[in-house]
Amino acid sequence: MGKRGVSGIVVLGETTLANPDLIYAVGGNLARGGIYFKRKGSSPLLLVSNLDIGTARKLGVVRRIETYTQWGFEELVKKYRRRDEGMARLISAVLRHEGVSGRVGLFGRSDLASGIHLANRLGSLGVKIVGGESPTILEAARETKEKREIDEIRNVGRKTTEVVSEIVDNLSKMKRIRGHLQIGKRRATIGLVKSMISTKIANKGLIAPEGTIFAIGPSSADPHNSGVNSDQIKQGRLIVFDIFPQAESGYWFDLTRTYVVGRAGPKAKHAFEAVYEAQATSLDVLEAGVTGEEAMLAACDVIERAGYKTVREVYEGRSKNVSSGFNHSLGHGVGLTIGERPNLSLLSKDPLKAGGVVTVEPGVYLPKYGGVRIEDTVQITRNGYEQLANVAKELEIV
Amino acid sequence: MGKRGVSGIVVLGETTLANPDLIYAVGGNLARGGIYFKRKGSSPLLLVSNLDIGTARKLGVVRRIETYTQWGFEELVKKYRRRDEGMARLISAVLRHEGVSGRVGLFGRSDLASGIHLANRLGSLGVKIVGGESPTILEAARETKEKREIDEIRNVGRKTTEVVSEIVDNLSKMKRIRGHLQIGKRRATIGLVKSMISTKIANKGLIAPEGTIFAIGPSSADPHNSGVNSDQIKQGRLIVFDIFPQAESGYWFDLTRTYVVGRAGPKAKHAFEAVYEAQATSLDVLEAGVTGEEAMLAACDVIERAGYKTVREVYEGRSKNVSSGFNHSLGHGVGLTIGERPNLSLLSKDPLKAGGVVTVEPGVYLPKYGGVRIEDTVQITRNGYEQLANVAKELEIV
Repeated sequence: MGKRGVSGIVVLGETTLANPDLIYAVGGNLARGGIYFKRKGSSPLLLVSNLDIGTARKLGVVRRIETYTQWGFEELVKKYRRRDEGMARLISAVLRHEGVSGRVGLFGRSDLASGIHLANRLGSLGVKIVGGESPTILEAARETKEKREIDEIRNVGRKTTEVVSEIVDNLSKMKRIRGHLQIGKRRATIGLVKSMISTKIANKGLIAPEGTIFAIGPSSADPHNSGVNSDQIKQGRLIVFDIFPQAESGYWFDLTRTYVVGRAGPKAKHAFEAVYEAQATSLDVLEAGVTGEEAMLAACDVIERAGYKTVREVYEGRSKNVSSGFNHSLGHGVGLTIGERPNLSLLSKDPLKAGGVVTVEPGVYLPKYGGVRIEDTVQITRNGYEQLANVAKELEIV
Repeated sequence: MGKRGVSGIVVLGETTLANPDLIYAVGGNLARGGIYFKRKGSSPLLLVSNLDIGTARKLGVVRRIETYTQWGFEELVKKYRRRDEGMARLISAVLRHEGVSGRVGLFGRSDLASGIHLANRLGSLGVKIVGGESPTILEAARETKEKREIDEIRNVGRKTTEVVSEIVDNLSKMKRIRGHLQIGKRRATIGLVKSMISTKIANKGLIAPEGTIFAIGPSSADPHNSGVNSDQIKQGRLIVFDIFPQAESGYWFDLTRTYVVGRAGPKAKHAFEAVYEAQATSLDVLEAGVTGEEAMLAACDVIERAGYKTVREVYEGRSKNVSSGFNHSLGHGVGLTIGERPNLSLLSKDPLKAGGVVTVEPGVYLPKYGGVRIEDTVQITRNGYEQLANVAKELEIV
C-alpha cells in the first residue's frame, strides 16, 4: 500500500459472484457480499450481513468479522433515509475507528455510478478516495497465487481433465456409419456432445458461465467460434475442444485439446505437430524473470518455421492482419477470473513472477478447413513451470 | 436523463457476464464487453472489439456499432503508453464526436478502483462524470421489463418448472425402505438429488451460478441453508426446493416449492396451508400502484392469523428479532439479476409499476423441525399480475 500512497483499502460488493477482488480479500464466497477494511500494517476487518456471519467465520482468511447491524447500519439508513447514505456513513465510521487517515483505495466490482456516488459522499465525509491505475494493488496481489489458491485451481483442473477424458472415451466408443459418429440411432452433432459436456461439468460440481468451445471443421478455424450445434461429427475433421469451467470457490481452469476422430490427414497432422512443438518450446522458456513476450516469441518461431503466419508480422508492421496461422496471444492469467495478469503476448514486457498461473495456448488456424489449439494451465516457478492438471495430447481418437 | 441532470451516459465493462447494465443496454452477451454511448435524444453508439463485431450486430438493439480499432484505440494506447489512458482518451473523443457536453453518467459493473481512475482521467480531459444514487437511471429502466425481456424470463421459467417436475417425478418413483428413499441400492441423499438437479439444469442449457437450495428437515428451517449433502431423504420431512437458474441471455428465474415425501404431519400441513394462503392473498393484492409494503402486509396478516410470528413485529418494535415464522421479506425483482428492484418488503413505500417482475415468496420456518416456502416469479400488470411459469403447489409426494 505504501508504494501506492494509500493508507488503507476498502473492498466491497453486494456479492462475491464475479467479484474477484472481494472473493480474494475474504477468502471465499459470501452470498450477500461484504465490506473488507484493511489499514496499512493492521489486521483486516470484514463486515457482513447477519445472515452471512456463520459462512464468513468459516472462510478462515479474515479473523475480525463483524456485522453491519453491530455497526448500526439499519439506524444509519433510517436516520439519513437512504441506503446509499447509510452505507457511506458506515464506511467512514469504520475507517475512522480503524484509524485510517489519508488516501483510501476503493476496490471490488460494483456498479460504477453507485461506486462514484459513494466515493463522492465519502469525500464529503472527509475520506479521500483515490482511483487505481491497472494493475491495481489487488490485481497485482492476485497475480501470484498462494498455496490455497493453487490447490483450488488444481482441483478444478483435475475435474476438467476428467470431463475431457470421459468425452474422448465416449467419442471413441460411438458407432461410425459412413464416417458419421452415431449416438444411438441419431447422428452425433456438436449440440448433442455439448449437452454431454454440460452434464459432466455439472456432475463434477462445476459451472461454465462462459460456455464451452466444441467446434468441428471450418468453425474450429475461428478461435472464437464456440461450435455450431447442428454440425455433424464426422471422421477426419479437426475438433477444437476448449473447456473453461469454474468451481464454487470462484477459481477457474482453462484447457484445450484438438482431436480428429479416426485418421487425421497430413494437413491436420502438420498443423498439430507445429502447435504441439510450439507449446512445448514456449513451456520450456517459461520461468520467473522471463517476459510473456519471450515465451510468445518462442512459440511464434516454431510456428513460423513450420510454414505458418503469426501475429508477429502484424506487430512488426509487416502485415495489416493475419487471417490464418497463429493469430492470437500465447496465454493469459487464470485464477478468480479467466483473463487476468500476467499476459503472454507480444506486448508483455514485464518479467513473470513465480506463483503466477497462466495458460499456454498456441494455435494454428486454417480458414475453411479447421483449427488446432493446445492449451494447458500451468504455474510459473522460479526455475520453470508446473503443470496443474494434464490429459493426453493425442490428435487421433482411433 | 434530463431529470437526472445528465446529457449523456456511458455504459462499459470488459464482459457482459454479471454486468446487468451493460447486457441491458446492448441487448445480449458480448464476450469481451463493450462501451455503449448515449446522448440525450440521440441514437446510441456501441463500440466493441474486432472479434465481437459480428455478435454485436446480431443483438439487434443498438444500430450504430463500431470497433475500438476504427476509433484508433491501439494507436492511443501506443501514444500514451498505457491501456487505461488510451481508454480515457477514446471515451472522451467519442463523447466529443457525439456532441455530449455537460454531465455524463458512467455505468456498468467494473472494478471500482479502475472506474474511479477513469472518471478522474475523464475529468482532466474535460468530461464531467457524475455518480448516481440508487436507483440509477439504468436500475430504474431495468425495473420495468420489455416484451423481449418477459419472453426471456418466461423461457427460463418454463425450463425451471420442467426441472422441478422431473425431480418430483423422480422422487415419487424412488423405492422407500423403512421410510428412506433409495437410489438403486443406496439411500437417497440431498447430495445425490442436488447432483440430479445440476444435471437437469445443464441439460436445459441453463446454469446456476448461485447454486440451488434443496434442504430437508431442520436445515430447511433456515431460509439460507442450501441443504446438507449427507442428509438422507426420509418420508414425512419437510423439503424446501428453491431453484434460481440463469439462461445464456442473462435472465434469471426464481421458484420455490415445498414437499413432503409420503404423508405430511399436521404441523407441516398447517404451516403449508398458511404459506399457500399468504401467497395467494398477497398475489391478489399485487397490481401496479400498490406498494411492496402493502403486498408484504397482506402476507403477514394471513401468517399471523395462522398463529406464526412475522418480521412485522421487529419492524413495529415489538420484538428484537423473529427466529421462527415468516422472517424475511416477501419478494424481490428478477431480471438480469436475481435481486433487483422492485422489492416487496416492509420498507418498500414506492408504488409498483406495471411491467415489473417480482418473486412472491412467503415462508414459515419452524426451528429444529423444518421450513415451508412457496415462491413464484410474476409480472406486475395494470390490474393484477401474470404468472410467468407454474408448477403444481402440492405438499405431498405420495
